[in-house]
Amino acid sequence: MSANGRPSGQQTPPPQTYDSAFLRACRREPVPHTPVWFMRQAGRSLPEYLKVREGIPMLESCMRPELVTEITLQPVRRHQVDAAIYFSDIVVPLKAIGVDLDIKPGVGPVVAEPIRTRADLERLRELTPDDVHYVTEAIGMLTGELGATPLIGFAGAPFTLASYLVEGGPSRNHEHTKALMYGDPQLWADLLDRLAGITAAFLKVQIEAGASAVQLFDSWVGALSPADYRRSVMPASAKVFEAVAGYGVPRIHFGVGTGELLGLMGEAGADVVGVDWRVPMDEAARRVGPGKALQGNLDPAVLFSTPEAVEAKTDEVLAAASGLEGHVFNLGHGVLPATDPGALTRLVEYVHERTAARG
Amino acid sequence: MSANGRPSGQQTPPPQTYDSAFLRACRREPVPHTPVWFMRQAGRSLPEYLKVREGIPMLESCMRPELVTEITLQPVRRHQVDAAIYFSDIVVPLKAIGVDLDIKPGVGPVVAEPIRTRADLERLRELTPDDVHYVTEAIGMLTGELGATPLIGFAGAPFTLASYLVEGGPSRNHEHTKALMYGDPQLWADLLDRLAGITAAFLKVQIEAGASAVQLFDSWVGALSPADYRRSVMPASAKVFEAVAGYGVPRIHFGVGTGELLGLMGEAGADVVGVDWRVPMDEAARRVGPGKALQGNLDPAVLFSTPEAVEAKTDEVLAAASGLEGHVFNLGHGVLPATDPGALTRLVEYVHERTAARG
Repeated sequence: MSANGRPSGQQTPPPQTYDSAFLRACRREPVPHTPVWFMRQAGRSLPEYLKVREGIPMLESCMRPELVTEITLQPVRRHQVDAAIYFSDIVVPLKAIGVDLDIKPGVGPVVAEPIRTRADLERLRELTPDDVHYVTEAIGMLTGELGATPLIGFAGAPFTLASYLVEGGPSRNHEHTKALMYGDPQLWADLLDRLAGITAAFLKVQIEAGASAVQLFDSWVGALSPADYRRSVMPASAKVFEAVAGYGVPRIHFGVGTGELLGLMGEAGADVVGVDWRVPMDEAARRVGPGKALQGNLDPAVLFSTPEAVEAKTDEVLAAASGLEGHVFNLGHGVLPATDPGALTRLVEYVHERTAARG
Repeated sequence: MSANGRPSGQQTPPPQTYDSAFLRACRREPVPHTPVWFMRQAGRSLPEYLKVREGIPMLESCMRPELVTEITLQPVRRHQVDAAIYFSDIVVPLKAIGVDLDIKPGVGPVVAEPIRTRADLERLRELTPDDVHYVTEAIGMLTGELGATPLIGFAGAPFTLASYLVEGGPSRNHEHTKALMYGDPQLWADLLDRLAGITAAFLKVQIEAGASAVQLFDSWVGALSPADYRRSVMPASAKVFEAVAGYGVPRIHFGVGTGELLGLMGEAGADVVGVDWRVPMDEAARRVGPGKALQGNLDPAVLFSTPEAVEAKTDEVLAAASGLEGHVFNLGHGVLPATDPGALTRLVEYVHERTAARG
């Protein structure tokens, strides 16, 4: 750290980015207004996204730096959100190291040969920056375009990646994953450790290219009890967070249905814990404990209701979050595909107005 | 109540049923062993079920008393569970009052014309015993066959029924349902109140025919925050429980992902609160408070692991439940279709042995 408290080295964001409302809130410093961004803000809810993606398969679109840059910028232009999130997919680093997988429209990631034995592990080699050169290129372009707006790097967490690899695709019940986790704890631990290394390397590439925060998404981890999380997942997630600790960028951790896990997800090493809409923000703060910022948590389905209802529910979130050390406003899950983009733009304005008046 | 503490009237089960381990646990009385049953024990995991259902659509199978009787008895014969659950589907009472719906294999219930306006409400008339005469017939046969084994009656809760009706089918995000709930609270309340009346009437038919407990399934209610549950769902669920309170049969209430709602679901009027696998039983007991029994909560996916892992995880559940006032052992969700039936039979034996030794 330098004398003024900023991290030293090439990863220090420019001063106006460092002092943005989003990064200040992540660091639990006073803010001019509560910062807002939306998970999945870049994507299916925007007509301009559907237009530029036309005819381009999902994974291919993640490997084209110009396209990634355009898609990442679209919601910043349209909604005036306080942070951009790097457009990617959870399985991009797996594809990059040669796992035979594809993202099937309407289904999700499908893995040709699921990983279930020790021999299968050998297919998961380490990730190098060259494997994802398009990420470095895209982030180089993005930081130039974004100006003071911070860019959030993005990766899937080891448990969620493991679920896709072991099941061979999206799964509602994670039977094969849990069968392995309970039935062969050593193989499971080795699998998650390997995935932690890949994930950490992927996040490092993004930070070194210019991302000024990272979010580790553990989409499916809400399927576990606290005891199983602590025993079978937390060591790998902690390894990821530890690997990027030296950069001094805020580390956000989010999963859906994780009310029972919030404390442990903070303990794993997150600076900011994401909260879904099921747990009120003040109760989430109690579970996470002091020294962490929180992110959340308007139910994305509320945006399908009336403008008055959206404002009323937003007020509930802001009221519950009013005592937090740091609050990043977000939805409690990703933007739903059929969401009216206008409702998102109005929501950003509303949160800014309401919290600027208070500040 | 009569002098010996049993409920009076024709719904009193025969003494050996009344004194069964299952009903004693529901009443928080000492038990010879922890009773066990499984949600979805009658169904897709059993080859004998697949055989008798062959070529018969789901809803039709729910309306044939001999078939319902056979399917309800199958898991009792095979696994020696401590209770039977009436074979039905959540949408049966809606079909019975004339809602145009069908259960599509691989999809679930599909409603031809979703309910979203006040005029639509008129399509939901009251349910009379004549609408479900096959239920009365089936339960008459069942109680004869079951002997001392209690029969659990079964209905979907108002919120879950409303979600199917408003969405027009199964929904991951319940957008239309929540849009209505937040956007037109009076229409929403009227819809849920009407569904509560239908559900209560359906449960009364089952109790009067001989069911000695009931379970109200709120499959989707875990999609709500506690504030929304209290405001928009609890009054209707409470109306159902209140309507059947006079019979003196235990009332079980269960939903998935309801860690935040357990206390409120008990408060709604349940005697037994079902717990999914995400919340340890001792923590669930803390949230529910005294004066209620709990049901749960082995992760159904554990059954895909090794026998040793199943026993270890079962021991964890039993240890966490050891201080409860009353414990009914169950899975934390329904039996998954690909579950090995032998694993379920062994699990019943194991819980009986472990808890008889302690008792």
